[in-house]
Amino acid sequence: MKIVFFVFDRLTALDAVGPYEVLARLPGAEVVFAGPARGPVRTDNGCLALMADESIDAIDRADVLVVPGGFGTRTLEKDARVLAWVRAIDATTQITASVCTGALVLGAAGLLAGRRANTHWAVRPRLAEFGAIPVGERIVRDGKYASAAGVSAGIDLALALAAELCGTEVAQAIQLGIEYDPAPPLDAGTPEKAPPAIRDAVLARVRARDAAVAGR
Amino acid sequence: MKIVFFVFDRLTALDAVGPYEVLARLPGAEVVFAGPARGPVRTDNGCLALMADESIDAIDRADVLVVPGGFGTRTLEKDARVLAWVRAIDATTQITASVCTGALVLGAAGLLAGRRANTHWAVRPRLAEFGAIPVGERIVRDGKYASAAGVSAGIDLALALAAELCGTEVAQAIQLGIEYDPAPPLDAGTPEKAPPAIRDAVLARVRARDAAVAGR
Repeated sequence: MKIVFFVFDRLTALDAVGPYEVLARLPGAEVVFAGPARGPVRTDNGCLALMADESIDAIDRADVLVVPGGFGTRTLEKDARVLAWVRAIDATTQITASVCTGALVLGAAGLLAGRRANTHWAVRPRLAEFGAIPVGERIVRDGKYASAAGVSAGIDLALALAAELCGTEVAQAIQLGIEYDPAPPLDAGTPEKAPPAIRDAVLARVRARDAAVAGR
Repeated sequence: MKIVFFVFDRLTALDAVGPYEVLARLPGAEVVFAGPARGPVRTDNGCLALMADESIDAIDRADVLVVPGGFGTRTLEKDARVLAWVRAIDATTQITASVCTGALVLGAAGLLAGRRANTHWAVRPRLAEFGAIPVGERIVRDGKYASAAGVSAGIDLALALAAELCGTEVAQAIQLGIEYDPAPPLDAGTPEKAPPAIRDAVLARVRARDAAVAGR
């Protein structure tokens, strides 16, 4: 099973690495990290580089495509080469998945029109720009399309995909292997649960950074 | 605040990237990924490379040191250069943290003698080899030492450290920023919760891979 992670500059590392840590453990998984060019891509804060082992030009199919998010997706929404590649790979997939603002790339590629999808809570309304139906659930499925909420939600999505693709027992073994029995020491992981002042501050920060990237 | 992630060949990527995604968002965080040499390090399955932007030789202090795990720690336990570096950095830290089998590196460096600590459930008894007191809790603190259980537990540990270092509101904002409101679709994340046959199979697999690395 060929599983392709698309990586790019200004991605959010956990969006990709969470699902990777789950899906790479599927029996027979052949995982490839592919970027606009071979070589390192840097995260949105600049302090971590992941290696794109292949250029997207070298990838012509995938059983599972995973598109992570990060402030860099704003640029990708207008990148005709990347969007054409996403469409071409999507035509070959069993599952096309996004985490966080990766959904906006799928949307810009025209793949989510009329479909239910989710993204990071702070930009959820933007899904409608691409004709998608925003749904505030941690994991959203519509046909072969699978979208997760922000950042950490990719782990939950990947476990659900693992169970779907290879059965419950394989997914349970992966969950145990990564000791995924989460116990957050705080309870502020959604805009409904966080104190309103914190929610507003995070929203303002996301919007400012997004606007800065959009304005380049 | 200087936060150093030690990375190395055969690491488990999520062990590092989970805490990174939290701690890099602390106000004033200066995050560095450092490895035995500058350049890419590969994960335990070979399919992802993270970049070590610095050699450990270029790092002489840290406010927070994070040592992730992975099968590669078995080799590091006997790596005198790495262990000396860990001891030297530890002498400068406010917090010395490990995720998963990173605790065995701290142990081999002599930092956990007489201290409570945890690691991946499958190798927990090995902490006693280094004089540590194995504790089956997701986050274990003993003085300035902080150790997480396996892989995904590093996210919970990092949120607890964020609250400790910068206050509850900063940690809440980070939790909301990464939308960390986990909802695993299965409930097999600990050896107590997983079906016994799955627990035994995962344990056998971990032991076989660990023995293969140890025997090199």
